[in-house]
Amino acid sequence: MTPPTSPLTTDLYELNMVQAYLDQAEDKEAVFEFFVRRLPARRGFLLAAGLADALDFLETLRFSKADIEWLKSTGRFRKNLLDYLSGFRFTGDVHAIPEGTVCFPNEPLLRITAPLLQAQLIETRLINILHFQTLVASKAARMVLAAPGKTLADFGLRTAHGAEAGLYSARASYIAGFSGAANVLAGERYGIPIVGTMAHSFVQVHDDEMQAFENFARARPEGVILLIDTYDTEAGARKVVELAPRLKADGISIRGVRIDSGDLTAMARKVRAILDGGGLRDVIILVSGGIDEDVLQGMMKAGAPIDGFGVGVNLATSQDVPAFDCAYKLQEYGGQPKRKLSEGKQTWPGRKQVWRAYDAQGRMSGDILSVETNKQKGEPLIVPVMHGGKRVAPSPTLAHIRERATRDLARLPEPLRQLQTGADYPVKVADALTALAAQADTKVRG
Amino acid sequence: MTPPTSPLTTDLYELNMVQAYLDQAEDKEAVFEFFVRRLPARRGFLLAAGLADALDFLETLRFSKADIEWLKSTGRFRKNLLDYLSGFRFTGDVHAIPEGTVCFPNEPLLRITAPLLQAQLIETRLINILHFQTLVASKAARMVLAAPGKTLADFGLRTAHGAEAGLYSARASYIAGFSGAANVLAGERYGIPIVGTMAHSFVQVHDDEMQAFENFARARPEGVILLIDTYDTEAGARKVVELAPRLKADGISIRGVRIDSGDLTAMARKVRAILDGGGLRDVIILVSGGIDEDVLQGMMKAGAPIDGFGVGVNLATSQDVPAFDCAYKLQEYGGQPKRKLSEGKQTWPGRKQVWRAYDAQGRMSGDILSVETNKQKGEPLIVPVMHGGKRVAPSPTLAHIRERATRDLARLPEPLRQLQTGADYPVKVADALTALAAQADTKVRG
Repeated sequence: MTPPTSPLTTDLYELNMVQAYLDQAEDKEAVFEFFVRRLPARRGFLLAAGLADALDFLETLRFSKADIEWLKSTGRFRKNLLDYLSGFRFTGDVHAIPEGTVCFPNEPLLRITAPLLQAQLIETRLINILHFQTLVASKAARMVLAAPGKTLADFGLRTAHGAEAGLYSARASYIAGFSGAANVLAGERYGIPIVGTMAHSFVQVHDDEMQAFENFARARPEGVILLIDTYDTEAGARKVVELAPRLKADGISIRGVRIDSGDLTAMARKVRAILDGGGLRDVIILVSGGIDEDVLQGMMKAGAPIDGFGVGVNLATSQDVPAFDCAYKLQEYGGQPKRKLSEGKQTWPGRKQVWRAYDAQGRMSGDILSVETNKQKGEPLIVPVMHGGKRVAPSPTLAHIRERATRDLARLPEPLRQLQTGADYPVKVADALTALAAQADTKVRG
Repeated sequence: MTPPTSPLTTDLYELNMVQAYLDQAEDKEAVFEFFVRRLPARRGFLLAAGLADALDFLETLRFSKADIEWLKSTGRFRKNLLDYLSGFRFTGDVHAIPEGTVCFPNEPLLRITAPLLQAQLIETRLINILHFQTLVASKAARMVLAAPGKTLADFGLRTAHGAEAGLYSARASYIAGFSGAANVLAGERYGIPIVGTMAHSFVQVHDDEMQAFENFARARPEGVILLIDTYDTEAGARKVVELAPRLKADGISIRGVRIDSGDLTAMARKVRAILDGGGLRDVIILVSGGIDEDVLQGMMKAGAPIDGFGVGVNLATSQDVPAFDCAYKLQEYGGQPKRKLSEGKQTWPGRKQVWRAYDAQGRMSGDILSVETNKQKGEPLIVPVMHGGKRVAPSPTLAHIRERATRDLARLPEPLRQLQTGADYPVKVADALTALAAQADTKVRG
């Protein structure tokens, strides 16, 4: 489990609202749902991720004495709030779409059912975890679809937005089907396979590129990957050919080479020819630098002889779409359905369920969004995951989540597998939900 | 000081390289510099940020017994590396452009001079800190320039990429001139003013919007901001007018209202008229939702009666440009200048300095990038900040850094103050640096 972040990782308004609720003793059961409002251009689906970390957050959220003292020192909060926070424990229920599931806008990724104060207090960090992991998993899934059968690795830690973004990016991309990550912490925290090659500086430190290759290979006798583009990529490849027999004599084999600059497809062809000509057919070619799903698709179409890809900033920042329009909204309070009517931001009220149908080929054919109790045809996606503040079962392993993602990506309708999505996936709103919305509106307007 | 993150927040290849260097006893003095390679479209300058956190990282980087045990358990590393990491302390020198300084591509934001193993090991996390804070500070500066005299606040924590991104975003935007942040932790860690209003859910919990306003105001008798767009914004404003005298009788004044949806400029005009008509000329109008520098400029041009802005996702993810193309490159090793020649990625070698000239009006008129010892006219920007692993002086306060940013933004040439930058700022490469590059190339080619 990831060590908890500070409980002060929250927006001030959450504390302000809890203060006001406490003063009024307003703490009936509240239902909030987290969902993405709409898909950005060119995106056809979401891949749910982040739930296990969100549940860790809920199970471990505590305010230390030092936190309380600091809050007190601001002079903003009264004793009733400070006492409440001192004893805070999340005791609510959570329902969610399991991680690794393909889903769509307006479908609740997660529902909180808890006393109002609790459900409100957790808002900011809950969104912060779920939004980002779902964002990266959804981006990574596009890359996985664009490069079937290829090895993809997350190289994005350095330009990820802080340490946690780098860690979450490794987790979310692994769920989507990446093979591993360069981030060592991803190995320690999540058991994700860690991968790494060498930097240009390693070559530069040596007066001689060949000597650099040899020193690196001898230090790492298993699975060594040599970076060959520091000065002249083709010359670098020829040095690998020259070096290989000498290392082989000592029982060291070179696993691959990496190219990080120039026209990667054209250069990979030249390098492949040099390696093959030198009898190194088993040496793989990895590339990095500017890789995204469009580049991947282009390379696949061109038949570039590339075996693996290190994907950095485009993945870890979800560079073309660095955020989704998402929300955590009150859907029911004290047994009454609720919804916001703000211009252009109306939401569906109540506790919802998503039913998914499949066609004869096993492909997803349409979802129905309805109220929880209004059973529809198909597979219900939202399941209970926490009751009374405790997980109903241990979270699935990452391997299990990753399998679910693989299965769901294989079940996507063909148009949604394209980078340029041609069609929207049908998500139908059931009559029961429309009726509930009308009921909520009447209540407000009346 | 921020508690250290795990030292395993690094790329595997750093450890692989350190392993190889240890095996070869290759550990001469190395000089690395961190810089941004080029500006994205529409950007005219960078605003340096993140240095204090980077220095904290260098001063506190330690590997615990548990970290070492885990590394050992992977079977990837030998005893010499595990012993080296167990005793790791950063003992090098750091030179940097102070936080809050305007700077440009190829200008080193930071230089590390240290034994090779140390200088290599710190790479990933150092970039991770400096890149993101500089990214957000540079984005925030555009918003500050677009809305002179207006109050801007960072509301971005929820969609920031993880907890640390939210914290760093608050710090970097405050440096650039924002007034505060919603993130409570930014107050605790950095002393940044924290700000907050209320959520739509607060209104929805109450059967009556007016009652919600009153309850919130009574809970927070000072500086209350009411969110008025949950159902009907104009009706919300009229309720504020009706409520104000009743609260005033109890000594409670409403400081402002917030609008979070619809056409913000048009709605602000209507709300201003309602408030003014009700005698509430002192009640300010804040808006949020979709705010970026272009929206701000448009509202300023339209003369929208808006006093303050809550800026969320566009700030905290730097949404139009979620990453810079940046690098941490070996510039000298064992006294020899070094540079990479990879296609399209050539760098300037050696220890560099930036000299900045100003015109008669005090505006920046051009920079010269040269080798450190080759004195040029103008103000040198790069200063020593750490010697032998210790800060040469305490880092400046955030207030001081923020003043520097304000001063530097005021000294920008007029074209660079525009959102659509029309001209590039002149950064000249001195002859001495060109000569050093040629020398480094001869060494490599020869």
